[in-house]
Amino acid sequence: MNKKNSDKSVAEKIDDLAKDTVSSIESGNNPDVTFPLRGLSNVYFDETQKMVKLGDKTQTRNFFNVGQAKKFMQTFLVARVIKELVKENITAPIRSIYYNTKHTIGDTSEETWEDQSESDPIIEDLEITLGSLREELHVRAGQKGSMVGNLTIIDAGDTIDLRKMGSGGWSIPSIVEKDIIKFKECEADYILFIEKDTIWSRFNEDKFWKKNNCVIMHGGGQPPRGVRRLVRRMHDELKLPVYVLVDNDVYGLYIYSVIKQGSINLAFESERMAIPEARFVGLSSFDQEKYKLPKNVTLKLKDIDRKRISEVLAYPWFKKKQWQDELKHMVEKGVKLELEALSAKDFKFITEKYVPEKIKNKDWLV
Amino acid sequence: MNKKNSDKSVAEKIDDLAKDTVSSIESGNNPDVTFPLRGLSNVYFDETQKMVKLGDKTQTRNFFNVGQAKKFMQTFLVARVIKELVKENITAPIRSIYYNTKHTIGDTSEETWEDQSESDPIIEDLEITLGSLREELHVRAGQKGSMVGNLTIIDAGDTIDLRKMGSGGWSIPSIVEKDIIKFKECEADYILFIEKDTIWSRFNEDKFWKKNNCVIMHGGGQPPRGVRRLVRRMHDELKLPVYVLVDNDVYGLYIYSVIKQGSINLAFESERMAIPEARFVGLSSFDQEKYKLPKNVTLKLKDIDRKRISEVLAYPWFKKKQWQDELKHMVEKGVKLELEALSAKDFKFITEKYVPEKIKNKDWLV
Repeated sequence: MNKKNSDKSVAEKIDDLAKDTVSSIESGNNPDVTFPLRGLSNVYFDETQKMVKLGDKTQTRNFFNVGQAKKFMQTFLVARVIKELVKENITAPIRSIYYNTKHTIGDTSEETWEDQSESDPIIEDLEITLGSLREELHVRAGQKGSMVGNLTIIDAGDTIDLRKMGSGGWSIPSIVEKDIIKFKECEADYILFIEKDTIWSRFNEDKFWKKNNCVIMHGGGQPPRGVRRLVRRMHDELKLPVYVLVDNDVYGLYIYSVIKQGSINLAFESERMAIPEARFVGLSSFDQEKYKLPKNVTLKLKDIDRKRISEVLAYPWFKKKQWQDELKHMVEKGVKLELEALSAKDFKFITEKYVPEKIKNKDWLV
Repeated sequence: MNKKNSDKSVAEKIDDLAKDTVSSIESGNNPDVTFPLRGLSNVYFDETQKMVKLGDKTQTRNFFNVGQAKKFMQTFLVARVIKELVKENITAPIRSIYYNTKHTIGDTSEETWEDQSESDPIIEDLEITLGSLREELHVRAGQKGSMVGNLTIIDAGDTIDLRKMGSGGWSIPSIVEKDIIKFKECEADYILFIEKDTIWSRFNEDKFWKKNNCVIMHGGGQPPRGVRRLVRRMHDELKLPVYVLVDNDVYGLYIYSVIKQGSINLAFESERMAIPEARFVGLSSFDQEKYKLPKNVTLKLKDIDRKRISEVLAYPWFKKKQWQDELKHMVEKGVKLELEALSAKDFKFITEKYVPEKIKNKDWLV
């Protein structure tokens, strides 16, 4: 692991934060902590790196300031727990951290937090300030998603041959950093990321990964952080191209967009999560005609779909002609299309024809 | 596998259904298919078996009946696809079956289905009529949930040692019938079923299953059919008691209730899914006082919670005094409690004290 972000470094950085504050108090000053500002006002699209990034606006919290003292206290409350987690080498989900640090302050009736919507942003603040991924702070998110394919990994010391994981597959954990997940023998040529678990099961049942020498994974809809981070690590370290297979609707496009450029909410993590080279293999808004699918398997666009598409059309990373054509065609046709609709041809059409041909013919969008 | 419900038998039973219809037409009669009636009006609690079951009310669909002819056609449309799935030995999710069978009828503008809410009940009708689990009809549901523990299984021919599944675990597939999942070496003394993935990760990280010789699993919230069926098979075939660990709220109680007695919607499956002996180890509404948890980690009951609790109080399977006390105490206190709230003690309290003591002291509800 990068020394800068190793466990030791996290503990050291928390200590430094605390020492600065103490020495500031001792020298009679007003201690402060400075954070990059998050949210839309400080997010931009980096044209060189091709990802959503956080700008350089900051905010400062002072201890001797009635409006900021509580947040200041909360920051150190969470920092203390994270240091404990790192020291004990255990992890905790954000909800448990909230409960663990919730208590009444002194003899007052004041609570450290009213609810979790107060503690979650403090964890994100610390991620940025300490320059560490949430996972490196030993903070877990939910666990969704499965993986199989021509690859062996080590997970928490256990060797797992992803070629022999049956119909279920290996569950992708929330924390997939190098000290937990290591990559061993890999013959795979690429990663196929599939939006839906039920479609992934079709690919696994047909042993698509064996026939096409790849790794297949899903994230149970919108993929959690662990899944995104794992795809990125495999892309970087195993040099595997990433193909994304999602529904032809705004939700599917959003999933692709997040994998590719990162999200506005987690803009500060794009450099460790986003994969600008990720390739969109479908569904495309041109697929219904192209594959002669019956019209009645399409779904009418709703007003909310049209509104979201017009927003997506304005995203800098969808400005390329091919993406504008793709999105405008969806609006013109007035319909969306789900992955399951391909079974109108036959159940194996998606695994035996659709995806292999798209990849073979380089019929994808970037 | 039970010969009666084997693949061959499913295909035979579909053939029988079709042959009856054809011979009925040939002899000049009005062909019909009779189904047990589903829904609340034909569901009851079987006091002997201690599970929710389907009554003996039936409904008949006639081919020569304007109001029933379409449903009659739809039934055979789905039956045909299921026979194909069985014959080709592939599985499909209900959504793909919907798309696969959606088409315009002859020269009319009439569709076989308007939407999936029409095709799903037909699949359930066939489950009952053919006396086969949906899984035996090769119909898949979603895939959620993970498992690890002192047990080796075979999944689709691959041997999987659940003692060596790292931090992620094995993903529980949707279809877990005997021809796909087989049980091998098992030292485990019991199954711990945990509502939430994030809490399950705490138990896996602490190697709870190793220290306490058990299997731990979660179903990602409300468990899908595959998870319920797998717990039941392990309970029956490996003779393992099942302990259920859920939030102390109506949602958690409902999850426990479904595992234990079955659900109204799937009453026809209770005999193959429900586990009346399942034990509720928590959270209990008495736990906050008992474990001296701070009051501020409880959450206020909402009106909707109170309404649901009054419904639950009336369920025949919650009529026992201990359950009535449990539920009434929740109402009196006016609060609910999440599993994560136990981390107010410390992060490992749940794995090192709470659950081991509950099990050791037989401090559970049945």
